[in-house]
Amino acid sequence: MTAAPRASAQRRHDTEHRLDHDIDLWVASASPDGDPYLTPLSFDWDGEALLLATPAKSPTGRNLAATRTVRVALGHTRDVCMIEGTVEVLEMSALPTDQGDRFAARSGFDPRTLTTQYRWFRISPRRIQAWREVDELADRELMRDGRWLV
Amino acid sequence: MTAAPRASAQRRHDTEHRLDHDIDLWVASASPDGDPYLTPLSFDWDGEALLLATPAKSPTGRNLAATRTVRVALGHTRDVCMIEGTVEVLEMSALPTDQGDRFAARSGFDPRTLTTQYRWFRISPRRIQAWREVDELADRELMRDGRWLV
Repeated sequence: MTAAPRASAQRRHDTEHRLDHDIDLWVASASPDGDPYLTPLSFDWDGEALLLATPAKSPTGRNLAATRTVRVALGHTRDVCMIEGTVEVLEMSALPTDQGDRFAARSGFDPRTLTTQYRWFRISPRRIQAWREVDELADRELMRDGRWLV
Repeated sequence: MTAAPRASAQRRHDTEHRLDHDIDLWVASASPDGDPYLTPLSFDWDGEALLLATPAKSPTGRNLAATRTVRVALGHTRDVCMIEGTVEVLEMSALPTDQGDRFAARSGFDPRTLTTQYRWFRISPRRIQAWREVDELADRELMRDGRWLV
């Protein structure tokens, strides 16, 4: 690696760029008795919260509804944006139409049109970290208790 | 996407290629009371098990020691190799030297030399799935109950 560690402001900029433009992320959840789950899903971001959609009866759907906590990663293993958040669960009909339309346009699929019962999962970030490699582990914390530090 | 869904044999080939050549993976674990954790780590693969190293007192280290279960992903959100496995925990001194050397050579770091207390986590796959996009969700199962299906 030749680049110097990024300043915190640059990391926030890069993180918000991913939130605005990436299509997929990794979703880690757990059952109430400690069985881990991980899967990639598409998402949308409205500037304050992430929006996911997955079947109500899938492992992720069941875990998020039960525990209301999630850890998601954007990017790659050597360019990580890690987000811990709290989860709000919404039935398909409970989300304003324009927000569902926006999700469908960004993700390329519209969960409102499927026969399988999907739910929306709205994730409010509480903690955000961003780092590339070991030299960026310091200063990786960008948000704490739901507030940007930079 | 122009490519047709890969045959199962091709998916196993691609999965073993990643296991043999990739450096990092995503590690999803959970605390016994259902708090999810996710982080990227380096790994080695000896043809039968994955080898990780992480601090004993890190969230991943504590979760894996407590629950002995893990879900790891190699690849990208649209080229996924997902592995569920059981976890064996080893102190640094308990691993044969050649295996530690091999891990250090592949990962670029040697956890045996650090002042922080690390442990080895040996993951035996029980279930392996591989898929790229929606058209590959069928037939994604490549290993079940620790046995390759293809």
